[in-house]
Amino acid sequence: MSASAEAATRPHAHDLSAHLQPRPLPATLLQALQQRFGAQLATSLALREQHGRDESVYNVPPPDAVVFAESTEDVADLLQLATQYRVPVIPFGAGSSLEGHLLAVQGGISLDLNRMNQIVAINAEDLTVTVQPGVTRKQLNEALRHDGLFFPIDPGADASIGGMCATRASGTNAVRYGTMRENVLALEVVTSAGEVIHTGTRARKSSAGYDLTRLMVGSEGTLGVMTEITLRVHPLPEAVSAATCMFPGIAEAVQTVIQIIQLGVPIARCELIDANSVRMVNAYSKMDLPESPMLLMEFHGSPAGVEEQAATVQEIASDNGGADFQWAVTPEERTRLWTARHNALFAALASRPGCRAISTDTCVPISRLADCLLVSAEETVASGIPFFLVGHVGDGNFHFGYLVDPEDADECARAEQLNHALVSRAIEMGGTCTGEHGIGLHKMGFLRHEAGEGAIAMMRAIKQALDPHNILNPGKIF
Amino acid sequence: MSASAEAATRPHAHDLSAHLQPRPLPATLLQALQQRFGAQLATSLALREQHGRDESVYNVPPPDAVVFAESTEDVADLLQLATQYRVPVIPFGAGSSLEGHLLAVQGGISLDLNRMNQIVAINAEDLTVTVQPGVTRKQLNEALRHDGLFFPIDPGADASIGGMCATRASGTNAVRYGTMRENVLALEVVTSAGEVIHTGTRARKSSAGYDLTRLMVGSEGTLGVMTEITLRVHPLPEAVSAATCMFPGIAEAVQTVIQIIQLGVPIARCELIDANSVRMVNAYSKMDLPESPMLLMEFHGSPAGVEEQAATVQEIASDNGGADFQWAVTPEERTRLWTARHNALFAALASRPGCRAISTDTCVPISRLADCLLVSAEETVASGIPFFLVGHVGDGNFHFGYLVDPEDADECARAEQLNHALVSRAIEMGGTCTGEHGIGLHKMGFLRHEAGEGAIAMMRAIKQALDPHNILNPGKIF
Repeated sequence: MSASAEAATRPHAHDLSAHLQPRPLPATLLQALQQRFGAQLATSLALREQHGRDESVYNVPPPDAVVFAESTEDVADLLQLATQYRVPVIPFGAGSSLEGHLLAVQGGISLDLNRMNQIVAINAEDLTVTVQPGVTRKQLNEALRHDGLFFPIDPGADASIGGMCATRASGTNAVRYGTMRENVLALEVVTSAGEVIHTGTRARKSSAGYDLTRLMVGSEGTLGVMTEITLRVHPLPEAVSAATCMFPGIAEAVQTVIQIIQLGVPIARCELIDANSVRMVNAYSKMDLPESPMLLMEFHGSPAGVEEQAATVQEIASDNGGADFQWAVTPEERTRLWTARHNALFAALASRPGCRAISTDTCVPISRLADCLLVSAEETVASGIPFFLVGHVGDGNFHFGYLVDPEDADECARAEQLNHALVSRAIEMGGTCTGEHGIGLHKMGFLRHEAGEGAIAMMRAIKQALDPHNILNPGKIF
Repeated sequence: MSASAEAATRPHAHDLSAHLQPRPLPATLLQALQQRFGAQLATSLALREQHGRDESVYNVPPPDAVVFAESTEDVADLLQLATQYRVPVIPFGAGSSLEGHLLAVQGGISLDLNRMNQIVAINAEDLTVTVQPGVTRKQLNEALRHDGLFFPIDPGADASIGGMCATRASGTNAVRYGTMRENVLALEVVTSAGEVIHTGTRARKSSAGYDLTRLMVGSEGTLGVMTEITLRVHPLPEAVSAATCMFPGIAEAVQTVIQIIQLGVPIARCELIDANSVRMVNAYSKMDLPESPMLLMEFHGSPAGVEEQAATVQEIASDNGGADFQWAVTPEERTRLWTARHNALFAALASRPGCRAISTDTCVPISRLADCLLVSAEETVASGIPFFLVGHVGDGNFHFGYLVDPEDADECARAEQLNHALVSRAIEMGGTCTGEHGIGLHKMGFLRHEAGEGAIAMMRAIKQALDPHNILNPGKIF
């Protein structure tokens, strides 16, 4: 681990500027970039700063330049130049990373992929779609709607599909439809040397050699740049219904979820929202939900199937003290509920002006979920740091958001200590330090703890084999 | 590609003995093996030959020795010795590979994992199970039944879970439950250097670094030896019903399947069996199914859900000329039907005494399934070679079995030509040369065609990084 990376995992080292050595781009490289990319190259401070920030807590100097790629060829040419000059390249999508993935900790070029936002092909009969990496999830669903299809993976932000691949994103529908791991079929990838390769096919399954597709998914821009992505999509369900249910405490809500999953109810979404989050969401989204822990659920299927699922779940919830079951029947009501849920982070940030959120992302086997949540919630309450708690609890994945004053080093340190304790607990319970946000800068220490030195050594060997000059988003993951 | 591997992909080079250079084990290594493994080491010709054969069409000389591992430590110690002496090690499970995965094309030691057959932990609440690699799928399901759980992946043979991981196996339930790709959560792996590492966790999802689990799944014993495997398992459905339906032709059956999938019916199994297969199965399994193309389907869910699915499917089938819908309601009837399906290969082998089956394994996007199947069936009929056709058509995956006389080089060559034509067609349609059997020796040329030199180079780079002395099942995949 480099010195800068080591610093990044230290609890109160959120401003990394002092630890980093700026290495300006060689003049001959800048010239070559200008020649090749013309107006697609930007070096203004404003644009560089815009590409040197994400939703994480870190401050680092911005990248030295930004290239706006418009084609696979642009990406390939940029990587050839970067290899030649040994200069880092950091792929950039929506900029919604929570873990510092996009930060230019070793300087270099931000590769903005947002102009590569074409939907290349919708194969409705095959339930597949091929897109460029800059397509966002909302844009994709807009395009799919006409064919009666949808793409279920929904991180809170309107992230780019490329970024979602890079972090192996999931969201609220994963309990039924899986994550990016399960829904990416094939990729076009530009290697560190600037070669274009293809992984996977449009067939639903394959045993043809190493699973390069899934090696790229979740590799956080460190093994290659994805320039075309083929996804599985799903038929819009014939019937959908959503419901909220209030619980006296978190334990009762979680117990309900455990029983739903163990019974094999094919629930599509199953979200826990604690009383703090409900309060913040009410204020931010002008809603009036009762301020107690709630489950926000959605059922997909045939009309009869949805009714049957809902009845089963209502019975389980009642057995566990759930009350005030509210149905959202119209699409408008459902959209309002889910938008409120997706805005939980922004609602929380608005609740303490000037704060930043340190978001945890542990995921545990579901039998340990109640234990893990309750102990961690108690610890957090005791710390006095404002927080909220939301969770894709059907998967055992949940997020505490510690709302810290970024200027208050002591508060930041205490929040990181809470995070450390939570991650250790989750790993001990057979879980993971990140269910969906990725490692980035922030969780490198946690990954070592979780995976062990042997697995990290294997990851390093793969990185070294595929990116021998360490130009692809260096200083991340390990 | 080595000379021996090149030979393996030549159509009529099924006896590879002449192409291979036997390199006997160094005497000092044999001595070290005897010292370390005692009675767990076998060098008798009978045992070596038993470990030098699979269900493929190839004849090669047997491995030089067999080691029966009983623990992870045994595997680690063997790999350390093998690394020291640069001697190949080939993991061996049930021996049911169809593609020559197990053959000692560069000599070396067969690592028999069948004694590592403990079910380490069943975590019923979490729907996970941890097993040693020698556990077979039937053994696992027997053990899970008491907890109301099952493991859905079912290649025809009673394969070992280790072997199923190694080839990224699937089977008849994949259309609903996914393949080994989707159902392996975590692994203990011994590296080529003999180090024990862990990948993944028991959490349902994770974004923690490179997806080493899925890199190992499907790597055919070339990147590491899996010594412990954690799987997702599923609740036994409340209700199950199976049905057969006869069709005037393959086209009508496939059209039915396409519509079922596009409607999003959560069918659990959806198998096509051609008239030839029905005839062979009738003879072998003493059944009296009508000899026309049929779909064999199964529905899982609540009693009402299963009824609803079945009614929808029956309507679609009728619209496409399906008739003679027969329900198998009791578990015994269902088991009889599925056992017959799983024995299709053996039924076919029995239909032409002394023959061997060259099994194809293409998988295409479902919109191209009818085209691909019909043209290929016509070509096969025209060739005069006896064949059968079965398919996991809900996934777009199907198998022609060409029943060749292994002594008839011309017939073997013509069968391989049919296979070549089929694979080229499938790749052109956006499909893959192997849906579930893997590459092994047999499909190395096809993989090059499908993946392209760039992707193959990336696979080689990974192999070189993780197995620098090329001791893990060398000469396979590429």
